[in-house]
Amino acid sequence: MSEPSSDIALIGLAVMGQNLVMNMNDHGFTVSVYNRTGSVTDDFMAGPAKGSQVVGCKTVKELVATLKSPRRVFILVKAGAAVDAVINELTPLMARGDIIIDGGNSHFPDSQRRFTQLKEKGIRFIGSGVSGGEEGARRGPSIMPGGDPEAWPFVKEILQSVSAKVDGEPCCDWVGEGGAGHYVKMVHNGIEYGDMQMIAEAYDLLKSGLGLSADELKAVFEGWNKGVLDSYLIEITAEILGVKDEDGGPLVDKILDAAGQKGTGKWTSNSALDLGMPVTLIGEAVFARALSSLKGERERASKKLSGPVPKLSGEKQAFIDDVMLALYASKVVSYAQGYMLLREASREYGWKLNFGSIALMWRGGCIIRSRFLGDIKRAFDNDPALENLLVDDFFVKAMAESQTGWRKTIANSALLGIPTPAMSSALAFYDGYRRERLPANLVQAQRDYFGAHTYERSDKNRGEYFHTNWTGRGGKISSRSYNA
Amino acid sequence: MSEPSSDIALIGLAVMGQNLVMNMNDHGFTVSVYNRTGSVTDDFMAGPAKGSQVVGCKTVKELVATLKSPRRVFILVKAGAAVDAVINELTPLMARGDIIIDGGNSHFPDSQRRFTQLKEKGIRFIGSGVSGGEEGARRGPSIMPGGDPEAWPFVKEILQSVSAKVDGEPCCDWVGEGGAGHYVKMVHNGIEYGDMQMIAEAYDLLKSGLGLSADELKAVFEGWNKGVLDSYLIEITAEILGVKDEDGGPLVDKILDAAGQKGTGKWTSNSALDLGMPVTLIGEAVFARALSSLKGERERASKKLSGPVPKLSGEKQAFIDDVMLALYASKVVSYAQGYMLLREASREYGWKLNFGSIALMWRGGCIIRSRFLGDIKRAFDNDPALENLLVDDFFVKAMAESQTGWRKTIANSALLGIPTPAMSSALAFYDGYRRERLPANLVQAQRDYFGAHTYERSDKNRGEYFHTNWTGRGGKISSRSYNA
Repeated sequence: MSEPSSDIALIGLAVMGQNLVMNMNDHGFTVSVYNRTGSVTDDFMAGPAKGSQVVGCKTVKELVATLKSPRRVFILVKAGAAVDAVINELTPLMARGDIIIDGGNSHFPDSQRRFTQLKEKGIRFIGSGVSGGEEGARRGPSIMPGGDPEAWPFVKEILQSVSAKVDGEPCCDWVGEGGAGHYVKMVHNGIEYGDMQMIAEAYDLLKSGLGLSADELKAVFEGWNKGVLDSYLIEITAEILGVKDEDGGPLVDKILDAAGQKGTGKWTSNSALDLGMPVTLIGEAVFARALSSLKGERERASKKLSGPVPKLSGEKQAFIDDVMLALYASKVVSYAQGYMLLREASREYGWKLNFGSIALMWRGGCIIRSRFLGDIKRAFDNDPALENLLVDDFFVKAMAESQTGWRKTIANSALLGIPTPAMSSALAFYDGYRRERLPANLVQAQRDYFGAHTYERSDKNRGEYFHTNWTGRGGKISSRSYNA
Repeated sequence: MSEPSSDIALIGLAVMGQNLVMNMNDHGFTVSVYNRTGSVTDDFMAGPAKGSQVVGCKTVKELVATLKSPRRVFILVKAGAAVDAVINELTPLMARGDIIIDGGNSHFPDSQRRFTQLKEKGIRFIGSGVSGGEEGARRGPSIMPGGDPEAWPFVKEILQSVSAKVDGEPCCDWVGEGGAGHYVKMVHNGIEYGDMQMIAEAYDLLKSGLGLSADELKAVFEGWNKGVLDSYLIEITAEILGVKDEDGGPLVDKILDAAGQKGTGKWTSNSALDLGMPVTLIGEAVFARALSSLKGERERASKKLSGPVPKLSGEKQAFIDDVMLALYASKVVSYAQGYMLLREASREYGWKLNFGSIALMWRGGCIIRSRFLGDIKRAFDNDPALENLLVDDFFVKAMAESQTGWRKTIANSALLGIPTPAMSSALAFYDGYRRERLPANLVQAQRDYFGAHTYERSDKNRGEYFHTNWTGRGGKISSRSYNA
């Protein structure tokens, strides 16, 4: 056996893994690779990796033996039990101080657990979000590493080299301890769900409301991509709208309208519920996918349930411009909500997240990359303790300028019968967030009426609780521990 | 020690417990009671229970010794560890075939676990939802028991006797095995969250949009309570609006607008996410409470964020009538969503839930009791296999008749800047549910573009997956296991 000479190993040669390996190879790192199904490794070595420095390995033992010390192993397999299986296979072969990086879409509590378990064995664990899809992995993804801070100096150079760059700065930085990296990736994915849903709603408004053709839609999205909405998802939407099927018609029209999901959007919503943060737009986006997947039920319902015929009165270009403003303003709300969740998670788990640095990591390489994230970065540079994105001066002004078109679009969608669950939810949030007083006083009165839950008063100090015998009947006992 | 002569024991003498005991006593059952803090028992025995057949006990051992066989112990303590603590204290004192009923707001997986654990010891466990608050517990609550079917014949008489009745039928019936009872109660509470939020939105539209006074609002809700909205929550809303503070002004105006939550709404939303059912309205209601509780942040934001001045053009009574239709139609959607969740949970957990029977249990006694639940009961009587409430003929017609006013109200709320997150979400759901084709095809195209997730086609069979090389660049590998 020759002297160990590989800089890093990668386990899992699905599309992302293959591309990440070639990316590392291009940056001068020697990468050893292993895949459970050996023929995948063979095909990769004979195909994309042919002529490269990549070292194909038949076993995990062989893989580990090729690595310089401290050994660095990057795992890119399906989240869940497969990650634990690979870690269990790896650990007996590794030494104290070696490093395992899980680059899959693991759920953050799993990363927290793995970090703790491996620390006891002296192995340094990093749970790292990687976003960018096929293309990103090959050309420079966004990388969000968290876990054992002692491991960071040993992987920083590799990860920052292969990551995307914006204005020369890598879209990869240390996120925080334990599960912080995968948490930030999870919120990234939740925001991605929201962005995709909003774009789908805008597309639907223009297609079903205005009757635009795919070519016209393509032109609209290309135009939007030159302004404040400039982003990867708008760009690929325009490209998608231009792709033709074999019959010459738009391919997108042939695609079944039942969207799948892989869990990270759901996890984001679950975490928002657990932490009590009103991340409504992502919630609506996740539920919109769920509704889309009830395809048969919708088909049957469409034959029974009535609605208006989408018929637009008013000027076409004005409608398009209003939809753009609705998309932009809703997007601001969605990111504000995402950052509210990050802020609360940072507080709850003691991560001390750097919000500006997160914006920079998302600025390039990943699916949600956009010019817009540069504005968010600037907001946190101006005030690292900014309470909420919505109260940053730039966004205050942006919302003031967008809201008339936004409001018209939401009103139109209600009147025309074209569903805009994400954008409507964003507007309701904006109008609730800017309200000094909401009607929750009535909710508190009801809860006190039927469950003696007590309430606070706006003319008394917080923390003083009152109970009213609303009916004149019933007892005087107030309930602080039992809820009806 | 005298011969055991009590029919049932109750542990936990908070407001609900005390009232339920007196209710059982009124129906001729001899109830033994115990509370961890003994002075509460003393006060209860010297107060409400004075002159009754209730037997106060100083210890759990003493309590169990008073019971006829099979012993029946009803626990009404705070959900969570306290329930396990009481069960652990009880079980060594009980015999095979004895019955423990947990009537608190336990999370259904806990009830499932307790059912299984106690079954191994030969003790029959029932996890039962009880709703109705203070008043309900005293006068007849809705009771939703599930767990060990062998226990049902031994508790049926007591539980149905003390439960509410509608047209002579008890609002209590066997729900299903394991955690089914607490699951149905959880969904009940989620729906309750939704109902309360919708009422708060209607109140806000009329107060902030029209400027109605508390007395005028009271009259509106009293009027609504005579029609299709006839329900406990509308009734108490009217009563609340009539209660004056010491200074003679409406008390509701003095209540702090920060609504608390105790978890069951959140659990419903988490379960909806886990089961992939689009229960959007309850989700928005839970998030609306979360937003309300960010009181300080909202106060600061209100000074920076702009919006329209709510100024109504058009006729006042027409606006009120439209809000009523919006509330009604949104409520239909919310219950349809709740039943979608029940249907999916029944399938997932093998509970064979009886949907009509659930409507009857909710028809009286509980917080969401309403005339409306009678219509739901009829829908399931007409067709026990009804796919969705929205496609029942009665509700098809109801939605057709309500939707113009509903759409106007949502459009107004967007234009006036008055948030209606729950009612807007309901409309978006309705318009999505009745769509044969949603814009999720674009979402699928995007996912295939950046992550090679593949898609199905509407002109091919389900289960056939396609991948397009959208850019002409990149590989041909499609991703079925890794998501970006």
